[in-house]
Amino acid sequence: MAKDPLPPLDAHWRAANYLAAGQIYLLSNPLLTEPLRPEHIKPRLLGHWGTSPGLNLVHTHLNRIVKERDQDTLCVWGPGHGGPAVLANSWLEGSYTEIYPDVTRDAEGMKRLFRQFSFPGGVPSHVAPETPGSIHEGGELGYSLAHAYGAAFDNPDLLVACVVGDGEAETGPLATSWHSGKFLDPVHDGAVLPVLHLNGYKIANPTLLSRIPEAELDALLRGYGHEPLHVSGDDPATVHRELAAAFDRAVDRITEIQHEARARSAGARGQRPAWPMVVLRTPKGWTGPKNVDGDPVEGTWRSHQVPLPGVRENPEHLRQLEEWLRSYRPEELFDADGRPTDEVLSCVPAGDRRLGATPHANGGLLTRALPLRPLEDFAVTVDKPGTAQHEPTKVLGTMLAKVMADTAERRDFRVMGADETESNRLGALYSATGKAWQARTLPTDEHLATDGRVMEVLSEHLCQGWLEGYLLTGRHGLFSSYEAFVHIVDSMVNQHIKWLKTSRALPWRAPVPSLNYLLTSHVWRQDHNGFSHQDPGFVDHVLNKSPEAVRVYLPPDANTLLSVAEHALLSRDYVNVIVAGKQPCFDWLNLDAARAHCARGAGVWDWAGTDDGLRDPDVVLAGAGDVPTQEVLAAGALLREHLPELAVRVVNVVDIARLMPREEHPHGMADFEYDALFTTDKPVIFAYHGYPWLIHRLAYRRTGHDHLHVRGYKEAGTTTTPFDMVVRNDLDRYRLVMDVIDRVPGLSVRATALRQEMADRRTRHHAWIREHGIDLPEVADWSWPY
Amino acid sequence: MAKDPLPPLDAHWRAANYLAAGQIYLLSNPLLTEPLRPEHIKPRLLGHWGTSPGLNLVHTHLNRIVKERDQDTLCVWGPGHGGPAVLANSWLEGSYTEIYPDVTRDAEGMKRLFRQFSFPGGVPSHVAPETPGSIHEGGELGYSLAHAYGAAFDNPDLLVACVVGDGEAETGPLATSWHSGKFLDPVHDGAVLPVLHLNGYKIANPTLLSRIPEAELDALLRGYGHEPLHVSGDDPATVHRELAAAFDRAVDRITEIQHEARARSAGARGQRPAWPMVVLRTPKGWTGPKNVDGDPVEGTWRSHQVPLPGVRENPEHLRQLEEWLRSYRPEELFDADGRPTDEVLSCVPAGDRRLGATPHANGGLLTRALPLRPLEDFAVTVDKPGTAQHEPTKVLGTMLAKVMADTAERRDFRVMGADETESNRLGALYSATGKAWQARTLPTDEHLATDGRVMEVLSEHLCQGWLEGYLLTGRHGLFSSYEAFVHIVDSMVNQHIKWLKTSRALPWRAPVPSLNYLLTSHVWRQDHNGFSHQDPGFVDHVLNKSPEAVRVYLPPDANTLLSVAEHALLSRDYVNVIVAGKQPCFDWLNLDAARAHCARGAGVWDWAGTDDGLRDPDVVLAGAGDVPTQEVLAAGALLREHLPELAVRVVNVVDIARLMPREEHPHGMADFEYDALFTTDKPVIFAYHGYPWLIHRLAYRRTGHDHLHVRGYKEAGTTTTPFDMVVRNDLDRYRLVMDVIDRVPGLSVRATALRQEMADRRTRHHAWIREHGIDLPEVADWSWPY
Repeated sequence: MAKDPLPPLDAHWRAANYLAAGQIYLLSNPLLTEPLRPEHIKPRLLGHWGTSPGLNLVHTHLNRIVKERDQDTLCVWGPGHGGPAVLANSWLEGSYTEIYPDVTRDAEGMKRLFRQFSFPGGVPSHVAPETPGSIHEGGELGYSLAHAYGAAFDNPDLLVACVVGDGEAETGPLATSWHSGKFLDPVHDGAVLPVLHLNGYKIANPTLLSRIPEAELDALLRGYGHEPLHVSGDDPATVHRELAAAFDRAVDRITEIQHEARARSAGARGQRPAWPMVVLRTPKGWTGPKNVDGDPVEGTWRSHQVPLPGVRENPEHLRQLEEWLRSYRPEELFDADGRPTDEVLSCVPAGDRRLGATPHANGGLLTRALPLRPLEDFAVTVDKPGTAQHEPTKVLGTMLAKVMADTAERRDFRVMGADETESNRLGALYSATGKAWQARTLPTDEHLATDGRVMEVLSEHLCQGWLEGYLLTGRHGLFSSYEAFVHIVDSMVNQHIKWLKTSRALPWRAPVPSLNYLLTSHVWRQDHNGFSHQDPGFVDHVLNKSPEAVRVYLPPDANTLLSVAEHALLSRDYVNVIVAGKQPCFDWLNLDAARAHCARGAGVWDWAGTDDGLRDPDVVLAGAGDVPTQEVLAAGALLREHLPELAVRVVNVVDIARLMPREEHPHGMADFEYDALFTTDKPVIFAYHGYPWLIHRLAYRRTGHDHLHVRGYKEAGTTTTPFDMVVRNDLDRYRLVMDVIDRVPGLSVRATALRQEMADRRTRHHAWIREHGIDLPEVADWSWPY
Repeated sequence: MAKDPLPPLDAHWRAANYLAAGQIYLLSNPLLTEPLRPEHIKPRLLGHWGTSPGLNLVHTHLNRIVKERDQDTLCVWGPGHGGPAVLANSWLEGSYTEIYPDVTRDAEGMKRLFRQFSFPGGVPSHVAPETPGSIHEGGELGYSLAHAYGAAFDNPDLLVACVVGDGEAETGPLATSWHSGKFLDPVHDGAVLPVLHLNGYKIANPTLLSRIPEAELDALLRGYGHEPLHVSGDDPATVHRELAAAFDRAVDRITEIQHEARARSAGARGQRPAWPMVVLRTPKGWTGPKNVDGDPVEGTWRSHQVPLPGVRENPEHLRQLEEWLRSYRPEELFDADGRPTDEVLSCVPAGDRRLGATPHANGGLLTRALPLRPLEDFAVTVDKPGTAQHEPTKVLGTMLAKVMADTAERRDFRVMGADETESNRLGALYSATGKAWQARTLPTDEHLATDGRVMEVLSEHLCQGWLEGYLLTGRHGLFSSYEAFVHIVDSMVNQHIKWLKTSRALPWRAPVPSLNYLLTSHVWRQDHNGFSHQDPGFVDHVLNKSPEAVRVYLPPDANTLLSVAEHALLSRDYVNVIVAGKQPCFDWLNLDAARAHCARGAGVWDWAGTDDGLRDPDVVLAGAGDVPTQEVLAAGALLREHLPELAVRVVNVVDIARLMPREEHPHGMADFEYDALFTTDKPVIFAYHGYPWLIHRLAYRRTGHDHLHVRGYKEAGTTTTPFDMVVRNDLDRYRLVMDVIDRVPGLSVRATALRQEMADRRTRHHAWIREHGIDLPEVADWSWPY
């Protein structure tokens, strides 16, 4: 008769629970070799116990499945604020010690493990980049399941388990993440096994999903497209048995689904499968103190953080803690040296199969550089600046399509969009791949494919979450978004930047491909959607974050966009924000010039100015962004025509962080460079794509800052024409010429007349636009005249 | 035999469809009294046709229900980008002309209605503040259902219909909004009737919910807690009949649920009802062109915007447009003067019952000032600054509890929190009301109540969306959030500020109560959650937006928080952001001083400085925020002790926009005020709560800006002690003293020694914290010594 597999599982679970509680409480006496005294207790008790026993239970049972089936597995821990649990498991399986050799797998190491937790200079209280085996911080809730799917895409042999807390399940992003199965290809993608853990409580409240009838919950999950397997209880033996059975059934069913799909002829659509999932209902803070000071704790929200808060001062709390810790019978779980016993470790897989050691959680190890063709294959020909026009993102689309085609076998590149890929002019991608879609199709549909690598869903949260999961497991991608709506994922990019900042400082974490945003359909060209679609503030948002991980580019035309995109796609560990237009826009630079300009990040456009590139200018006209650049050049042309004696220098900035001091951002210019470009004493009229004060915030330390005058978007938005938008925001060519005249001292009477003429043209514009509803021909038909 | 009610409904629908298409296309010839010619067509064709026929259909049928039942009704149009539809209906029912008398209900007015749509200087293409009857912009999708629930709370007689597009339904916020029913009290709240409109397509893709089997969709909606009524078809007569029946059944069922609940004895919990909803499946762009240039258009994504794009140039498109418009038989719908016929108007309700005229959509009309008690009832006694401590948000909680108690009958005040109300120390509220909760309860639960007016759900999106709906219908509220996680709703607050900015300029829109944020559990006191919970950037985010609608306050202690909160709760049409701590914090100002200080928004704290309030200071130490203020005062005390000859002025800033130029923000100081406070030539060491460069961005135009040196949060976050956090970010008292010494010229040797002593104390801190894990006693036990 086979040995009962459950007692060793229970031993592992108890060991993990012991270690989790120990991290929250103990400074010393880690094995309870002596009676617990106040001085063994940490002075500040921090951490989240409530979710930890559940995470330990899932980890224990995943260990079994992984080991028995030799199944390549990654786990995303949604309730990652239960950091002690995941750390405990990593220490048990040995992956922790391999990465952090100081924290040995013995009594001394256990003591360090305990002490460092939530201790200044130690490790964070959540699952974090520091945690082996993790791609997911458990602080801001909502993204675990999207991360899990991102990890599973194009990893056909990988099982991604994902614990979803019932608190997190209330968030919007998580609520829509359940639909991700409609984008998961059983042939080319791995599987996601969600474990919805209903422990019943959040910080201070019951959870919705734990308080609706099981039939209602079951309907909800089936409605999402899943086959739920329910496991409930508070008797460990029963739960062990049922959970083991549920995991077996789930993985069997996954294997079946995959075999069936992979046996079909390529491209043939089968029935969309109902993927299995587990609903695990166990008490919050299970195995912890049942009552404290007369209040029920186990099985309630009171166990969320530190169930016994007064251990150092309150002898009864100390007694309860000792009783609680000894209830796990540590003497059976660890030998005299503090090493876990063979029984405890009997469920633990080996090598890279350990959840804390999987290379998928350190995705940079698996990254291959993208095969990029020479930009010459895609660049537009520019014989003369400002005559021909292209839609920059459309040109980029041809390049992305080639990357997509060239990764057809490798399948390590995806493009995300919230139903906007075509609108953003990246439709060329469909020559190389389809749009991922597992739901029903109709004959009128276009470009839908079960194995597509363009992801389209009307949820920026899913686009972002999927992409983060995809990148952190070592693959590449780009997210194109309407500029205004990328704010929907402000908080997600915050967390991703935090992840990158921390990871960059960990030598064992290999760099991962950057998160690349293409922000288009931007503030200046929302002709038909108006004010709700006009917001350029994402740049401000990301520039507040860790400068080592943030790059922002505003390429002014098609070739500069290509050059910037190439750089972004090859880079690692950054968030690259590229703001570029999708509407026809003049080509200013040929490819060589574009490359040189982007490499410098900011530079003089000699051909557009009248300072001969040599003599000291009277004024600097600077632009950043495609629309501002056009207005700057048009203003330059007007000045050249009407005030030829004025020495105008035209500067263009692509890499906005160049404006920052060198000490504040790795791309920041040294003062001498900045001064050489912008002068220290001449007026600088800066036409910027977004909020004008951002430029001041970046450049306030520069010597010439007092002479810097910035125009940009100032919330004067509506449904209107392109030129009316710039006029409303005082960014138009006429206003820029007036700004120059207002700021350059000692100009001639001709300048006064020109200023009046510019003001008149603005008046004429106002009258014309209200009458005709389209832009003045002099503007609509303008091109660079020199 | 009763007259068949369907033909007049169809006539109304056709009229609305005609008017919607007319707005997209026609400049003139509105009644097609002559053959259509290119010059009748707008030069720029903008707008969203695809969703319009569906919105028109729902509006038509709502009209019938409202009129027949005399039912107070508000409708939230989720696919509000179909602006032409809602405008058409408002014009038909006459509410449009009442607000905009120029746009008469006749041929001339119809021409204006058409011309102004998406025309420069005209009206936006979406449902917007300019649209009568609306509380919801249809641009950024995801929030319609949350808005609808917000409108329904505490409006027991109101029916809130809500059209949810199947595109929007893919977003996270919408996906979790379906759970809102678990927070809706059938006794004290009105009803929400969701109409999930499956027209099958987004901009360029099919929608998820339209491509899963109906049984799966049905399970999903039942899992969300609804009873779905399905109506499908593309034959108008059938759909009219079925939709009318479904609306009747739904409203009957709602009435039944409400009667049953309201007949129960107060507070008794019944079975949570399955609220009815309608699933309406009709073709996208229904009744529009079936095919264009050989491609199917009706019933596909191609009808999303302008189905016939080339009307002015392409005679075939022109012909198709004329055929399409004439297919509605306008001659039967409008009389010779362009007035809608009686048949068309027969379903339209009268007066305030019209959807475009409901006062609930112009909620300021219904607003009553909150009954606030004198702050004396809640203020803390301050005999001497900086000796006693209080938790500011806990003190605020006592005030909010009174507001809650004093609105027990009126029920027009709610407090929202993402499972954080207790954590944010606002637990006193539970003395006055419970937490709204209609799901199952257990004996261990606390403070749950069917009629509670504290809303707790782990979704910032729901908190924000509910509150917006509640405020825009004229009621009051506050949203308390962990500071870092309010970024989750960045894009929602963008849209709300846009709404307020536009509304403020519309004389017919009455001011609504402000949206009040209490941001706490802030960056400096995330001892146990660490880096993921540390982000002070929301202030930067909102300060980019329309200054007329944005206010930001950083009260440094309990009494200033009370004063600021009182002001916020009484204000209208603002977004008020209040950043305040929940941890014990020194009381600095008594109530009178707090009031005076908050009224000024920024001022000198004479008692804390050594410049005698008169003589010119040598240095200004400024603080904004509770933790920075404490460090500033501690630095001031160190300087007073060790460098008594130094004239230090201590300034505190509560209202951060005071720093901005007067021209940039209504609260901005005039230069003479700023100069008087901060000097024009003395060093200013400014300790700010958030990102330091924000202060530079606000103050860069000030004369003294070159002398301004700001300390703040610079992303040096982790799980650590309070004082270690300020040290890591160079905001600590020792660093501030060093900054003073570094910047004041001509100091004595004593200053050099003091600087060294400060540096030594930082070193001592570093060693101590790593050893003991708690703050140095000299810091932990510090209080204001003078």
